[in-house]
Amino acid sequence: MSSLALSSDYVPSHALANVRGSAIRDLLKLTEQPHVLSLAGGLPATELIPAERISECAARISADSASLQYTVSAGVHECREAVASYDDVTTPRRVLLTHGSQQALFLLAHALVNPGEMVVVDDPVYVGALQVFQSVRAEVVALPITSAGTDVDALRELLETGARPRIVHTVSNFHNPAGVTATTQTRIELARLADHYGFVVVEDDPYGRLRFTGDDVATIAAHGERVVRLGSASKILAPALRVGWMSGPPEIIAMVELLRQGADLCGSTFSQLIVAELLDDRTWLDNHIARVRDAYRLRAAALATALSREFGDRVEFTRPEGGMFCWARVPGADTSALLAGAVDAGVAYVPGAAFGVRADFGDCLRLSYSALTPDELSEAVRRLSVALLA
Amino acid sequence: MSSLALSSDYVPSHALANVRGSAIRDLLKLTEQPHVLSLAGGLPATELIPAERISECAARISADSASLQYTVSAGVHECREAVASYDDVTTPRRVLLTHGSQQALFLLAHALVNPGEMVVVDDPVYVGALQVFQSVRAEVVALPITSAGTDVDALRELLETGARPRIVHTVSNFHNPAGVTATTQTRIELARLADHYGFVVVEDDPYGRLRFTGDDVATIAAHGERVVRLGSASKILAPALRVGWMSGPPEIIAMVELLRQGADLCGSTFSQLIVAELLDDRTWLDNHIARVRDAYRLRAAALATALSREFGDRVEFTRPEGGMFCWARVPGADTSALLAGAVDAGVAYVPGAAFGVRADFGDCLRLSYSALTPDELSEAVRRLSVALLA
Repeated sequence: MSSLALSSDYVPSHALANVRGSAIRDLLKLTEQPHVLSLAGGLPATELIPAERISECAARISADSASLQYTVSAGVHECREAVASYDDVTTPRRVLLTHGSQQALFLLAHALVNPGEMVVVDDPVYVGALQVFQSVRAEVVALPITSAGTDVDALRELLETGARPRIVHTVSNFHNPAGVTATTQTRIELARLADHYGFVVVEDDPYGRLRFTGDDVATIAAHGERVVRLGSASKILAPALRVGWMSGPPEIIAMVELLRQGADLCGSTFSQLIVAELLDDRTWLDNHIARVRDAYRLRAAALATALSREFGDRVEFTRPEGGMFCWARVPGADTSALLAGAVDAGVAYVPGAAFGVRADFGDCLRLSYSALTPDELSEAVRRLSVALLA
Repeated sequence: MSSLALSSDYVPSHALANVRGSAIRDLLKLTEQPHVLSLAGGLPATELIPAERISECAARISADSASLQYTVSAGVHECREAVASYDDVTTPRRVLLTHGSQQALFLLAHALVNPGEMVVVDDPVYVGALQVFQSVRAEVVALPITSAGTDVDALRELLETGARPRIVHTVSNFHNPAGVTATTQTRIELARLADHYGFVVVEDDPYGRLRFTGDDVATIAAHGERVVRLGSASKILAPALRVGWMSGPPEIIAMVELLRQGADLCGSTFSQLIVAELLDDRTWLDNHIARVRDAYRLRAAALATALSREFGDRVEFTRPEGGMFCWARVPGADTSALLAGAVDAGVAYVPGAAFGVRADFGDCLRLSYSALTPDELSEAVRRLSVALLA
């Protein structure tokens, strides 16, 4: 019989046709060249991962074959309890463990959003969130972020015109990529608007514990019920544990739990038990996190110093109070066009355009300082100035 | 201001509204009572998980903090290589690592199937596949499975009427739940129909290495290009490693890789390195798998002996050649209605109705023999006969 199908006709679904690849993850490949000092990644510092402690836990826990068996979709109870305690959640029933907090975002979007329904994000946006909302074919509305976080005035105006988003997403602390932290007033208003207009705030907070200057701000969830908080062990313990979590209304937890059965059945019993033990060892954990914070404080300062030294008044940038990212603008520089030259000069960054939804950010760039030492950061910025100011 | 939203109005998306919960996973909770001998689960034998070897690997590998860092979405190269070698795939580029093979199925469906498009499954069906296809809102067509596997004659008739499925899914070896293995003729015909009509065969094969009697049958992928094979470390090494994989056309691998960035970024570097090492240690692996196979052979035989002894001619059942499941029918028994009494009597199973799409299977049940010893299986079947034949 003659063939009706060409061998190359693997037609992507609408879900996929709509998704833009992550420039950042694609860059991971490019920047693996040894001579490149990468400000591009979103990686925590490898040398600060507590490998010795994790290795000891891993050996002991995996020696019991029961910890290598399947678990329930919501996650190992001990770890849900540990997360509830760590993140001030009233009960483990409000916690669901996921394969990194990215999976929490993905499942949440799939549980709550139909094609064509609205989702509001910040501009610039966390690319992983944009990909998720594109994959459910949401109508994505991006509001330019302010120095106080999500632009709640613009959001209110949007809502008053009759717009009814299903989700409003923000990275509340040390925004990726914008570097800003939502103020208390922004948080209160987000929670209030959510209650009034019936959307869900997704409070994406992987970096909250990595504050190295200034005071903690109460969570958005502290101000209202229609908030789902996302957290992760990736930035405080280790990415390869792949343990993230969401906490929120039990009705939403139940919906996501059901969807997760189909998505991947369950998480790793073994990894979740490791995370439970480490979160529960509060003395060790506090010391460990303090060590990471101290290192990032020095690195952020080294980056800022080098930017001022090399660029003078030709750069504007956020001074992050925590987390891993600095958002910079070099007026007149086309950061997308200049990237290849920068990599040749031995430095990588993510062009601002990778994070733009409505806005262009063509002269912006995201600089991650977490994975380089102060000396490396100084040299990286020197190379950057050669590439961008040439 | 007065509230427009009720606090309980977390409306599930269409994706979720369409998904039926997994009776099997819900049962996991019920059967955790200590007095219950569970034939319900799909768990490999806990005591046969190579915990000592995994513990040694885990300790050594996680002591290097680089193995606790993020990895690329397609998975750690060493592990893709190891899987390619283990599963006779021509190149690691055709392999993508996932968080269990369930995630491979989920991503594949999301990459290839739009709402309303057709997917063909066996009846009875692997519930995890049904959930996935429901969550993408596929039109699911179920063809009663035969003793030769997927009913390729019924499939051909369907295709000749103009039906154009995107995916045809089957569990090719030791079908879950039906226990049958697709014959060579069925495999050849599936691959041929896929080439002719342009669908993708999903050859779901978590149990293929667990054959304890009879001869291996060449894979469906060996007969054509439009086949994606799914495999997993869960049944041969340990579920909590959460390492599964898919192999197939590079175009499809690339589509799934893109979707995976949004789904959960990447898998666990750490777990994938453990799996790579264990798959590559062929002498150890062959011995280990032989040990699991031998145990399952004894268990399957003990179950069959007990069924014949306790039920006589009041039961019909498959005699599995491998894997973990036996499919039984007790004419006249309403296995859903009788389950609660069976649990009271100290035995659990999954009622056939949980696996039915068009068919009812009201007098059928799935019995898993992998997790119980021969003596426990004998006692479990005695209790089962009390509950079902009362």
